[in-house]
Parts: sequence; structure tokens; C-alpha cells
Amino acid sequence: MVYMRYDIAIVGSGPAGLSAAINAKIRNKNIIVFGTENLSNKLVKAPSIDNYLGFHDISGDDLKDKFKEHIKNMDIEISQKKINNIYAMGDYFALMSGDEMYESTTVILATGVEYGKPIKGEEEFLGKGVGYCATCDAPLYRDKKVAVIGYNKESEEEANFLNEIASKTYFIPMYKNEKLMRSSHDLDSSIEVINDRPLQIHGENLVNKVAFKGKEIDVDGVFVIKDSASPKSLVPGIETDGPHIKVDLNMKTSIDGCFAAGDCVGKPYAYIKSAGQGYIAALNAVSYLDKLKIEAKKNQ
Amino acid sequence: MVYMRYDIAIVGSGPAGLSAAINAKIRNKNIIVFGTENLSNKLVKAPSIDNYLGFHDISGDDLKDKFKEHIKNMDIEISQKKINNIYAMGDYFALMSGDEMYESTTVILATGVEYGKPIKGEEEFLGKGVGYCATCDAPLYRDKKVAVIGYNKESEEEANFLNEIASKTYFIPMYKNEKLMRSSHDLDSSIEVINDRPLQIHGENLVNKVAFKGKEIDVDGVFVIKDSASPKSLVPGIETDGPHIKVDLNMKTSIDGCFAAGDCVGKPYAYIKSAGQGYIAALNAVSYLDKLKIEAKKNQ
Ligand SMILES: Cc1cc2nc3c(=O)[nH]c(=O)nc-3n(C[C@H](O)[C@H](O)[C@H](O)COP(=O)(O)OP(=O)(O)OC[C@H]3O[C@@H](n4cnc5c(N)ncnc54)[C@H](O)[C@@H]3O)c2cc1C
Ligand SMILES: Cc1cc2nc3c(=O)[nH]c(=O)nc-3n(C[C@H](O)[C@H](O)[C@H](O)COP(=O)(O)OP(=O)(O)OC[C@H]3O[C@@H](n4cnc5c(N)ncnc54)[C@H](O)[C@@H]3O)c2cc1C
Repeated sequence: MVYMRYDIAIVGSGPAGLSAAINAKIRNKNIIVFGTENLSNKLVKAPSIDNYLGFHDISGDDLKDKFKEHIKNMDIEISQKKINNIYAMGDYFALMSGDEMYESTTVILATGVEYGKPIKGEEEFLGKGVGYCATCDAPLYRDKKVAVIGYNKESEEEANFLNEIASKTYFIPMYKNEKLMRSSHDLDSSIEVINDRPLQIHGENLVNKVAFKGKEIDVDGVFVIKDSASPKSLVPGIETDGPHIKVDLNMKTSIDGCFAAGDCVGKPYAYIKSAGQGYIAALNAVSYLDKLKIEAKKNQ
Repeated sequence: MVYMRYDIAIVGSGPAGLSAAINAKIRNKNIIVFGTENLSNKLVKAPSIDNYLGFHDISGDDLKDKFKEHIKNMDIEISQKKINNIYAMGDYFALMSGDEMYESTTVILATGVEYGKPIKGEEEFLGKGVGYCATCDAPLYRDKKVAVIGYNKESEEEANFLNEIASKTYFIPMYKNEKLMRSSHDLDSSIEVINDRPLQIHGENLVNKVAFKGKEIDVDGVFVIKDSASPKSLVPGIETDGPHIKVDLNMKTSIDGCFAAGDCVGKPYAYIKSAGQGYIAALNAVSYLDKLKIEAKKNQ
């Protein structure tokens, strides 16, 4: 099988990823942008935004529409895929999404960060029954019991997918969804919804329980589905500083050809900062590509 | 005389300065913003801007109007003053504009950069007949001959001011001004306009001539009036890297309490990058101020 080789793969469709995308496109690079239909949950959730220069007192939803219009005018599309792993292969990167693979010469990480704290036990049992990617690990849970702790609407799809394989699926919504009742969500009817905050993930060597206030469920696996995974689980070997990806002033990460921008590189968290850094990342990815071209010519 | 002490003085009204201003204001700081009526010459001159996320194919003039509306909604005004020198006084900064002084606990430099190369001889004779501030140095040229090399419309005012003192004033416009004729400019009629590119500023120990192609004029002083002066002449002692101010990832300069953002801190030059950095500079100035407050309380 021959894969299309992109110049720049942008992971994330928030302000950082979109600003990178428009600037890479202006520079005539062959790009692919991974993200979500609504661009960013953190964008659409904001009731009123005052500090994005040029728009005063705009709702996150309206700002999302402005961003959508901008990329539509420039023929930029969002590939609605979650990237689970990115591997540096030497002269290119392999981006895995379930059983699909994408190849790109450079990568810009614009994944945002998860603001909430992990659940007690989540980090301890990571890889020992706790996973972040249902499509990757589902086969391990054939005819077993799984819980999906979902931080976004998209996690409902992952629960449905798991439910085809597992003997029992619990769904624990962590996002506001006034009434997560049969009628209003998109979950298969055989999935059991638990409208309660999980306090701890328990186990011996492997996960065996999720505990709530005065209640426990027995499970073999727990999937925690968030908007953004930890950088190290997404890009093995990348240097980080706590939850953030280490970058220099040019938004270069510790891996050659890999750049990062936005919330994922550190505080303060803001739209305009993310957009500004997305621009810097794009320009530096472009000049990295141009240098590769010059070197390739020299070696001919 | 008692001066009002501002929390944050922002020097520059381009996207970097404005983004700093709105974010400092949101944080309830007492701010002053120095700049120009049209916000930024580099903004209004852009025919079409595609890469400021949220606005596609907008003219610089229209984007300026969006920025103006934003700051107006937030009751932010631009003080139309040119800051000539900024001195670090220990626990505050003194900002000089002609014979006026402003005091501020922190400073954010958002002055942009001059894209053009200096004229031959300009740097060599700086302080030896070449100056950047007419209101500062005019008294030295009473009854002498001066040339004003003007890179913007505002330089015409400086020429008029010098002309009240000097015996002869030449005005050399370096900006597009289709016909700089008596009828269309705001120069005093006794000023001689030279519509030609100056090739070199000559002198022995002090300036004595400006040379053009096949023509020379005798002068005692030359004022080069640009949108932005070199950082070192604006803030004595600040660390620079070529024409740019050195900053860290938090937009901190080498001087405590002094931050910088936008074109003045380095390439690539762009609106969205400048606005993003203006935000970072503002948040860090705010946390610097907050730390000072906590320390002051401790020492009470
Ligand atoms: C309620 C709320 C209000 C806020 N209000 C403001 C405000 O008024 N002003 C302000 O400046 N900031 C505000 N913020 C902060 C702001 O939302 C963030 O700083 C900003 O969204 C960060 O942009 P980003 O592009 O870095 O990441 P995000 O906006 O988080 O976007 C990241 C995107 O990448 C996608 N993604 C992540 N991982 C992957 C993957 N592996 N594969 C594919 N896609 C992936 C995510 O699904 C998401 O769509 C607010 C945040 C919240 C939660
Ligand atoms: C013709 C043209 C087209 C461009 N097109 C684009 C484009 O399409 N996209 C893009 O992203 N970028 C573009 N740029 C680059 C963009 O203009 C700059 O990157 C941007 O304006 C930098 O913003 P800034 O806030 O750092 O500085 P500036 O916009 O330069 O603003 C600095 C302001 O500070 C004021 N100032 C300076 N010194 C002092 C002082 N001592 N006292 C008081 N005020 C002072 C200046 O008068 C000015 O108003 C273009 C530039 C030009 C010239």
C-alpha cells in the first residue's frame, strides 16, 4: 500500500491548529488537519470572549463560526479523526488513527490540554486496564466488562463501538449533558449509564473496579475518553514539562520536524496566544521543509 | 510635581500593544497606551490580510476599524504621544515624551520595528549630528541648518517644529506621498522639500552633509523620523539581538518589570503573532505586579 505523504500534518482544530493551517496553506504546503466538527469544545463552550483582539464580547459559538468561515474560504477541511499515536520514522512521521495510518514529513501538535485532574488510579493503571483509545484496545475486551468515562459527546461513539465487543458496557458521562437519558443521547440501549462521579479506579495488578460514593462496579477495563491525551502517550519520546510539551521560541519540540502550539505547550491558556503560536509553528515547519528540499537538491 | 503612577505603560498601538492593553484592562490594571491615531502604519497599509484567524481577506484599514471598535468598547484610549526614552528607576519606569514624563511600575514594549535599512552614515553619526527625536534635541540647532528624513506623515510635524528654531530646514520624505507639494502637505512654506533618496550622511567629527545622486546639501544636523526607534536608543541598557529585543518565553526582557511583544522581539513578523505575544506580555506583567503587592504586604 502506498500512502500519500503530506508536508504538514496538524493535530488539533482549535485556534492553534487552525492558525497553523491557514498559514501553511498560504505557503502552498500540502496539509492535513485532524480535529472535530465543532473545531474545539473549549471554543464552543465559552459564553463570552473579550480578549481575542478584533472581536469584543463574542460567544465561543460565534467565534467558532468566524473560524469556520475563514478556513472554508481557504478550502481547508478538517479530517474528523482522532490521532492515537504519532511515531517519528526518521524522514517522516506516521500518524495512527485506529487502524488507519497517515504519513507526513512534519507534524504540528495543537492538541490542547485536559484541564481536569486525572481520576484517582487512572495514571497508576494506565496500560493495566486503563486506556485512552477504544478503537486501539477494544479487541482485548471481547466478552469482558468495560466502563467508558467520557469527557465529551464523541465518547458516546466509543462506548457504542466497545459495546459491540464487550459483554457489558457502562457509560459514565463527565460532561454537562443535562439529562443523559435514553431519549437524548446516542448510546445503544444496552449500555448502562451511570450518572455519578467516579471516585477511584481500583485493581490489584489489573483494573477490577470503579468506585463511586456508596457504590462500585466490577470491570475488566476502563476507557477514559478526553479531548486530548497526554503528550507522551500521543508522541512517544517527546520531551515534556509536566502536562506540557517542551518547545523553544520557534515552537520546535525535542523531535526534529515536530512542532507544537497552543495550550499543549503551556500556560497561560488563551485563544489569541494559541493562534499566535500556531502561526509561528507553521512558519518554522515551512522553513524546515524548505531546508530539506535544498539539501535533497545538493545531494542529487 | 506629583506624577500619576500607572501599573502598566504600553508603548505601541499595533496588534501587540492593543492585545496587551485589552488583557491588562480585563485584569483591572491601571494602564496607559502610547501610539498613533491610526493605530499602526503597518496595519493600515496592508491591502489584504488573509492570515489573522477569524478574518479572511480583510483590508488593513478594516482590521484597524475592528481593533478600534474593540478597544473603544473597553474604554481604552490611545495617548497620541511618542515616547523618546524609557529609564528604569528601580521600582518604576520613567517614560519621556518631549518634556513630559510618565511613571509606571511596569512597561510593555510593543514598538514594532523599522523594516528598512538605515541610511549610510546614519548609525555612524548617531549622537554626532544624527538624532531620532526633534523635540529632544531641537535646542542644539538654534539658527543652524537641519534636514528631516521623514518615514511617516507625523514627521512633517517634527519638521515644522524644528523650522521654528533652525535657520534652514530641509524635508526629505521617505514615504509614499504621491505629490508632496505645498498644497497637499502640512509643512510650513519656508521648509525646502527634497523629493530624492538620500544616499549618505557625511561628516568629519560631526555631520556636515547629506548626499543625493548628483547633489549635496550642507547641514549641521539630521533627524531621522521613523515609526520605531532602535530598542537601545529607546531603553538604555536593554539587551538586544540585532534589531530585536531579547525576551524569554514569557516575553520578559533583560530588565525586571519590562516586557516586550510583537515585531520588536523578532521574526516572523505578523499580526496574529504580535497579538498572541501581547497577551503573554500582559499576563506576565500582571503577575509581576501581583507579586510586588504580596511582597509589599509581607514587609509591612
Ligand atoms: C469554558 C471555557 C472558557 C474559556 N474562555 C476563554 C476566554 O474567554 N478567552 C481565552 O483566551 N481563552 C478562554 N479559554 C481557554 C481557551 O479555550 C484555550 O486556551 C484554547 O481553546 C486553546 O486552543 P488550542 O488550539 O491550543 O486547543 P483547543 O482549543 O483545546 O483545541 C484542541 C483541539 O484538538 C483536538 N485534538 C486533541 N487531541 C487530538 C488528537 N489526538 N487527534 C485529533 N484531534 C485532537 C481536540 O479535540 C480539540 O478540538 C476558555 C476555556 C474554557 C474551557
Ligand atoms: C505593507 C505591509 C503588509 C503587511 N501584511 C501583513 C499580512 O498580511 N499579515 C501579517 O500577519 N502581517 C503583515 N505585515 C506585518 C505586520 O504589519 C506586522 O507584523 C505587525 O504590524 C506588527 O505588529 P506590532 O504591534 O508588533 O507593531 P506595529 O504594528 O508596527 O505597531 C507599532 C506601533 O507602535 C508605535 N510606536 C513605536 N515606537 C513608539 C514610541 N516610542 N512611542 C509611541 N508609539 C510608538 C508605532 O507608531 C506603531 O503604531 C505587513 C506589513 C506591511 C508593512
